[in-house]
Amino acid sequence: MNQIITFGEVLMRISPSGNKKFIQSNQVEFYFGGTELNVGISVSNFGADVKHISCVSNDFIGDTAISFLRKFDVSTSAIVRSNRPLGVYFLEVGAVMRPSSISYNRSHSSFSEIQPEMVDWEKSLKKGKWFHWTGITPALCKGGYETLKEGLILAQKKGMGISADPTYRSGLWKWGGIPKEILSELVNYSTVFIGGVNEINELLDTNFSYSNEDFIEASKQLMEKYPTIEKVFDKIRTSINSSWHKIRARMWNGKEFKETQDLDITHIVDRIGTGDAFAAGIIHGLQKFDDFKTMEFGSAACAIKHTYLGDINYANEKEVMSILEGNTTGRLQR
Amino acid sequence: MNQIITFGEVLMRISPSGNKKFIQSNQVEFYFGGTELNVGISVSNFGADVKHISCVSNDFIGDTAISFLRKFDVSTSAIVRSNRPLGVYFLEVGAVMRPSSISYNRSHSSFSEIQPEMVDWEKSLKKGKWFHWTGITPALCKGGYETLKEGLILAQKKGMGISADPTYRSGLWKWGGIPKEILSELVNYSTVFIGGVNEINELLDTNFSYSNEDFIEASKQLMEKYPTIEKVFDKIRTSINSSWHKIRARMWNGKEFKETQDLDITHIVDRIGTGDAFAAGIIHGLQKFDDFKTMEFGSAACAIKHTYLGDINYANEKEVMSILEGNTTGRLQR
Amino acid sequence: MNQIITFGEVLMRISPSGNKKFIQSNQVEFYFGGTELNVGISVSNFGADVKHISCVSNDFIGDTAISFLRKFDVSTSAIVRSNRPLGVYFLEVGAVMRPSSISYNRSHSSFSEIQPEMVDWEKSLKKGKWFHWTGITPALCKGGYETLKEGLILAQKKGMGISADPTYRSGLWKWGGIPKEILSELVNYSTVFIGGVNEINELLDTNFSYSNEDFIEASKQLMEKYPTIEKVFDKIRTSINSSWHKIRARMWNGKEFKETQDLDITHIVDRIGTGDAFAAGIIHGLQKFDDFKTMEFGSAACAIKHTYLGDINYANEKEVMSILEGNTTGRLQR
Amino acid sequence: MNQIITFGEVLMRISPSGNKKFIQSNQVEFYFGGTELNVGISVSNFGADVKHISCVSNDFIGDTAISFLRKFDVSTSAIVRSNRPLGVYFLEVGAVMRPSSISYNRSHSSFSEIQPEMVDWEKSLKKGKWFHWTGITPALCKGGYETLKEGLILAQKKGMGISADPTYRSGLWKWGGIPKEILSELVNYSTVFIGGVNEINELLDTNFSYSNEDFIEASKQLMEKYPTIEKVFDKIRTSINSSWHKIRARMWNGKEFKETQDLDITHIVDRIGTGDAFAAGIIHGLQKFDDFKTMEFGSAACAIKHTYLGDINYANEKEVMSILEGNTTGRLQR
Amino acid sequence: MNQIITFGEVLMRISPSGNKKFIQSNQVEFYFGGTELNVGISVSNFGADVKHISCVSNDFIGDTAISFLRKFDVSTSAIVRSNRPLGVYFLEVGAVMRPSSISYNRSHSSFSEIQPEMVDWEKSLKKGKWFHWTGITPALCKGGYETLKEGLILAQKKGMGISADPTYRSGLWKWGGIPKEILSELVNYSTVFIGGVNEINELLDTNFSYSNEDFIEASKQLMEKYPTIEKVFDKIRTSINSSWHKIRARMWNGKEFKETQDLDITHIVDRIGTGDAFAAGIIHGLQKFDDFKTMEFGSAACAIKHTYLGDINYANEKEVMSILEGNTTGRLQR
Amino acid sequence: MNQIITFGEVLMRISPSGNKKFIQSNQVEFYFGGTELNVGISVSNFGADVKHISCVSNDFIGDTAISFLRKFDVSTSAIVRSNRPLGVYFLEVGAVMRPSSISYNRSHSSFSEIQPEMVDWEKSLKKGKWFHWTGITPALCKGGYETLKEGLILAQKKGMGISADPTYRSGLWKWGGIPKEILSELVNYSTVFIGGVNEINELLDTNFSYSNEDFIEASKQLMEKYPTIEKVFDKIRTSINSSWHKIRARMWNGKEFKETQDLDITHIVDRIGTGDAFAAGIIHGLQKFDDFKTMEFGSAACAIKHTYLGDINYANEKEVMSILEGNTTGRLQR
Repeated sequence: MNQIITFGEVLMRISPSGNKKFIQSNQVEFYFGGTELNVGISVSNFGADVKHISCVSNDFIGDTAISFLRKFDVSTSAIVRSNRPLGVYFLEVGAVMRPSSISYNRSHSSFSEIQPEMVDWEKSLKKGKWFHWTGITPALCKGGYETLKEGLILAQKKGMGISADPTYRSGLWKWGGIPKEILSELVNYSTVFIGGVNEINELLDTNFSYSNEDFIEASKQLMEKYPTIEKVFDKIRTSINSSWHKIRARMWNGKEFKETQDLDITHIVDRIGTGDAFAAGIIHGLQKFDDFKTMEFGSAACAIKHTYLGDINYANEKEVMSILEGNTTGRLQR
Repeated sequence: MNQIITFGEVLMRISPSGNKKFIQSNQVEFYFGGTELNVGISVSNFGADVKHISCVSNDFIGDTAISFLRKFDVSTSAIVRSNRPLGVYFLEVGAVMRPSSISYNRSHSSFSEIQPEMVDWEKSLKKGKWFHWTGITPALCKGGYETLKEGLILAQKKGMGISADPTYRSGLWKWGGIPKEILSELVNYSTVFIGGVNEINELLDTNFSYSNEDFIEASKQLMEKYPTIEKVFDKIRTSINSSWHKIRARMWNGKEFKETQDLDITHIVDRIGTGDAFAAGIIHGLQKFDDFKTMEFGSAACAIKHTYLGDINYANEKEVMSILEGNTTGRLQR
Repeated sequence: MNQIITFGEVLMRISPSGNKKFIQSNQVEFYFGGTELNVGISVSNFGADVKHISCVSNDFIGDTAISFLRKFDVSTSAIVRSNRPLGVYFLEVGAVMRPSSISYNRSHSSFSEIQPEMVDWEKSLKKGKWFHWTGITPALCKGGYETLKEGLILAQKKGMGISADPTYRSGLWKWGGIPKEILSELVNYSTVFIGGVNEINELLDTNFSYSNEDFIEASKQLMEKYPTIEKVFDKIRTSINSSWHKIRARMWNGKEFKETQDLDITHIVDRIGTGDAFAAGIIHGLQKFDDFKTMEFGSAACAIKHTYLGDINYANEKEVMSILEGNTTGRLQR
Repeated sequence: MNQIITFGEVLMRISPSGNKKFIQSNQVEFYFGGTELNVGISVSNFGADVKHISCVSNDFIGDTAISFLRKFDVSTSAIVRSNRPLGVYFLEVGAVMRPSSISYNRSHSSFSEIQPEMVDWEKSLKKGKWFHWTGITPALCKGGYETLKEGLILAQKKGMGISADPTYRSGLWKWGGIPKEILSELVNYSTVFIGGVNEINELLDTNFSYSNEDFIEASKQLMEKYPTIEKVFDKIRTSINSSWHKIRARMWNGKEFKETQDLDITHIVDRIGTGDAFAAGIIHGLQKFDDFKTMEFGSAACAIKHTYLGDINYANEKEVMSILEGNTTGRLQR
Repeated sequence: MNQIITFGEVLMRISPSGNKKFIQSNQVEFYFGGTELNVGISVSNFGADVKHISCVSNDFIGDTAISFLRKFDVSTSAIVRSNRPLGVYFLEVGAVMRPSSISYNRSHSSFSEIQPEMVDWEKSLKKGKWFHWTGITPALCKGGYETLKEGLILAQKKGMGISADPTYRSGLWKWGGIPKEILSELVNYSTVFIGGVNEINELLDTNFSYSNEDFIEASKQLMEKYPTIEKVFDKIRTSINSSWHKIRARMWNGKEFKETQDLDITHIVDRIGTGDAFAAGIIHGLQKFDDFKTMEFGSAACAIKHTYLGDINYANEKEVMSILEGNTTGRLQR
Repeated sequence: MNQIITFGEVLMRISPSGNKKFIQSNQVEFYFGGTELNVGISVSNFGADVKHISCVSNDFIGDTAISFLRKFDVSTSAIVRSNRPLGVYFLEVGAVMRPSSISYNRSHSSFSEIQPEMVDWEKSLKKGKWFHWTGITPALCKGGYETLKEGLILAQKKGMGISADPTYRSGLWKWGGIPKEILSELVNYSTVFIGGVNEINELLDTNFSYSNEDFIEASKQLMEKYPTIEKVFDKIRTSINSSWHKIRARMWNGKEFKETQDLDITHIVDRIGTGDAFAAGIIHGLQKFDDFKTMEFGSAACAIKHTYLGDINYANEKEVMSILEGNTTGRLQR
């Protein structure tokens, strides 16, 4: 009864090395990612037992995707296969004032065929302690929404913790579902909200600013509307440019507000998946630490992810903890 | 009035280097290809004025695809853009008894949105002398079939030469069209048939063998049913294994049969696109040579393509001619 | 009760790409291998449940080795860690008349610390159906010999099938054990002998030739001395040069002799691990096929391994079966 | 009548990846560049119709160079071929206090054979609206100077805009021409001066400082001496070290002075060609914008070039405009 | 009589490119290094005649190591060979708050077999002017200590200068020697101490702080205890994070104290070997410059090393001198 | 008095990996080569003391070239520097019937500045035992011819052995010298002729065929005209195609004729420099073996060179000897 469950699309990420564009070089690298998968692998790297549920292509690319998850000891036993191709995204990594740029090929991917009857939730959640979902899955296809909803119903019934990262990405909602209604419905099953004033404004039709005062008030109103929500964890990113960010976190747990100092990320290696690293840090922290330390752990996890290439946070618990404890000067480990 | 026109999907081809599998390395290379495109670029490399018509994605991948065609001086002025992603195929290159393996991601690609009204055929064929089509385009989508048909009608009206490579690949026909009927309809516009007994058997419901006698008889029956067809060019591949093939060609032009000797390809670099290289050699030959030399040029072009990585035949006319003239020992050029 | 168990050292293999030497390029690739591991992963790729038992370094290299095994769904739950470094081997791949060359760094590796008390054999063999061992493990260190012996005793007690590949590599025996005595002792626990006249001559102090007659007689004498041995499987390699081999197999199961045709491997990609691929094919075959088909499956598995870079046979059961069924011309799979 | 014309040498640029030296790795990358070419390609990337005139080698390297220009849709119809090799430059990229270092192999390159009779200026400038030249071309060889001069005479006669980047690089002037006289002669044909007080001091034998006051006074004196010059655009680079620069621009158009804010380039990817990117931005701006916006566009173009590997500015008009509009935090584009 | 002698282990360094981890990519690069070797090569790059004495493996890896030294014109005539493998270290390069991480495989390396009788010191020091040793060599093995001691005795007898870098790395001392005693014994032969308060505190059992006052006092006490020591050179590293350091140097020569300004290394390429680059700068400086310039040269050498990948400082004397003279803005060299 | 002396141009060789063309990939590799250099390095690899004399560029490319020679322990003490760039050649490697193709950039290289006064022959030949020259050096420039001639005069005076490889490559002779006269003059200093009927026909204006009878007769006439020539060594290449050659050797030493069997090189890695490997084998053999074994050693050296990438033969004496002894099946070396 200690398994963390994630459910969502597995994407193949393809990009040239360094800051090159596709037009510059026909040598590219691939990794796998996907917001829920990134969270699952990161939590597994922290030492947890994790199962990722998805639908991948029935070809050598799907085999490779599954093998990628296994590398990180994530259970793939509930992954189903489809004759459609795996979703792909192409990435050109920017620098300084040049933004990174992503182009998706996912609208008819293997995951888009997911249907509730393809996932045996009873079996999949048998050892489940925690369930994490994001706003990407219901956005992708009706089957994604319906399958997720079934999973959440059962998870709630079993008393599992449920974390929601209800990111709203308007470009994805093409199947006809009304984002606000659906996200609102799904937040209703959740116990922890990983998001900030943008996401709350979206759900509550409010207009809160980024100030701490507004964050606290927004969190209070959120908890009022969604009484299952017990805690809100938010991270704040200050972008100097594509290559230099600062990260801090804040939280409201219904009783107390707290925030961390900025972590200064002077030389970003890869910022994709850093939000997922924050979520993973929060989920892992909630199983072991108090709320304040959880927030700090999430913030440190988010920060260190910026130093790894690919969507995945490769840091283990000890490495994140070391940053949390103030070891940020990068002293060589022999 | 000397432009060669090709029309068809542009695919991004992604594969690991050498004989690696995707599970072995996250370093991959990409090229662009697609059967009609391969023909177009090869004919351009032989020195012809070529225009390729297609629909590619409206993102940096589509930009890169267009730039790839431009590299070879192929006109891209009639290429349209779509919000869907470019088609992709993943390739694992085999060796010896291990086959190469391909997985496609093309069923909802940018090209699948092609519609007759997106191509201004009058303008596109203004300088047209020759039109080449294959059985892949009508297989992909209804719009592909209808757009191609409009092009063929106009090309015929303008008296252009039309070469047909009516390859029937059953796995592609998913939109409801009946392959035999449609291919038959399109062959009716064509003046040169690039294919062999397999393709003829498919069209005529016959059962001819690979013997030269059967090839001649099959060609005769083909020309009877499709009286616009003047010539049939066929290549015969003998596979020792994935790494070692032999290639020869034969032809029937209504009056005479002729065949070439085998060209022995002892160390294949890449066999994808070698059939397209044959077609390109035939089309180019028909503009300049007699039928026999055309057949020989096609055969030599097909053979040398096996020595280039990627879908494209990089050989120019002089290089193919040199092989045709018997220079097959690969003497170092300084 | 259907798990295949392998036990042995995990080595990191480092080599330049293609046929380069270390002095030519500072770009190298690494894979993991080791004779028993290669067998385990290959059998897992055929679809079996496999557990590999070993001792790897307690650093990021050991982490990477474990993650390599997980990629192939091999259970790593019984792998222990040591503060010594993982064994390494450096490889320069030859061509034509130039031999490949290997240099080992394994004599004080993490595996050299293995001790019987580090492996919980009861737990490790709980689901065990088959145990595979080779002559490399007892050669490496006394602890390797003793630990292996404990495992064999238990495996025999549980009635598991036991395959022996008693390769004798004289350069490895540095810890003081007497090779012939120890190998002989361990063969006594085994039910299937994977080896040929060289290995039998070593054990019986005989001098059999490579002829089929001698192979049969040698096998008979072997079974007489080691009555637990029920079957002998041998592969025969004919080397034209470093780049071109032929492979066939033969067997004696106490009643019948049979041999396969040569498989002609005209363009070798990597010959390391091909003997292990043969052993894996035999082990897998013995679970599902009759002895003759098992021999053929082993032979085909060995042959196709020559087309994969690295120590591992990436072929699945269907791919090997296809070769066994005569599909050796490498027809492109779409 | 809207074509931008550039004329100058095409160089092959060869360098190790990252900050490596040639002594460290035998893996290198090549791109093509050359100051006028860089301007031409950049303006083409902004959407203009561009023709580049040059003389390249008559081998596969020259073919590759031409194909590189075609990739960016730059017309190569007026490029001539020579039996001499293409010019090459080798680059080692520095970091922090280590300077980048360039070694040229261009003194007997294909371009050094350029002669006035090799360029049909009438035909080449038929659609010409703008001509851009730099001080590199007349420095390289007498034929370069004479050919350029013929082009400028015709461009002036046709009333084309002419931009001069009269960079004086003393190491290049080996053919006997007197730099100041020749540059002065050529500036006399020009309508826009892209350069600063260094270049003006060189031409006027003055000693102006970098202050804005001096820049204005220098510009005034320049316009007095060369009355065809209507506008002066200058960029100012502040180098913290090899990896960190700041860029701003200023202008005097005969009536008004204006300057931009510094753009802070905290993590330089490649600084080669950033001056050319500025010139391209100015030329493009002059066709569409007022002088102030032109200056800002040039400054933003120069800044973003620092984020692309190679000599070329890959940014399109929209991407530069976005920076000009203040979007410098590099927000991820999906 | 002008040869600089270094003695110590040659290690093969293996690491993924950029900031990748071994688990992310099987493409890795190797270089050779080792603290004394790094000093030797750097001094050779400054123009000195250098001989490195070591024991390397008798295989193609050892051949490659020797060839690496020869590249830099370091004499390898006194290098002996062993049947043990060359020592290896694996490196994962961190960024920002993520530390770099090293795992060694050296405890039973070829160097660990070094014995006094394997080095002919008389012959090796024949042309010797300077001897450099570090605290790593006596830590590795008893033979390392004894061999070094013999060399120092002879060097002292011959009146050679002797620089000591008595780094104490506790993890290495496994052979039973008592670090403080042995280091103390060896410092007794030395004339220049390259180290700071940490090293002095270790030797004197003191507790000096990093302040300049303490540094001076510590140096005085050091010289009192070890009267052969004439000068102490120290460098001070301020780490903002893994990617951003500041370096300055200070010295006490028995009469005067002096320190340099900080050199700001805003974008570190590789910090391994930067301490060795400092030592090499000091040793080289002492042959040519006064003490103050020597200190400045060491500091500049240390700083520029941060911009080279690998353990080696590739800068020549002129390049270091240029930084010393204040050229730190990295102006492009053509 | 045992040094082998080579004198000639050092070229940088640049080519894409595998069989790619420059138009396909901007990733290329470089090596250094040059016919005399190739001979020198190969002889050094066989264990001899070798000095190479040349003139290389005074930049980081020249530094890298020198460091390349040092890697192989070839003395570079007599190499001079020039302000011209190092010669370069670009290579596209063919396969099967596609020839490899080379484009040179050497006509104004650093070596083209060589003048007799730049080489101190007295000092350079001080330890000289053998001098090797080829027909490339006098072809390149007058200074090359004159400098070589001075060297040959002194070498003859000192009684050194002199091997001539008087390859006549017509494309190179651009400086006005008359090839036949000059080559004839230089052969007059030589004691061993490494070449076949082609080279003899060129010198004698004869028309001998490839038959052994003609080879013997040609050799006799050669020795008659050039009485210093004592032995003629020839290798015969049979090209099946670019990827598959056969090599054998033959000799006439004034008394006896002998020839080797064909060595079958079924999978060529790189054929550049294989003639130089033959020459190196002959030169090395002449110092140690009888004429027949020398011929066999040359043939085996030539054959194994086909398995190494780059111009250089990396094989040592033992490796060549093993082939000579019939070990051509490439048995794995552990």
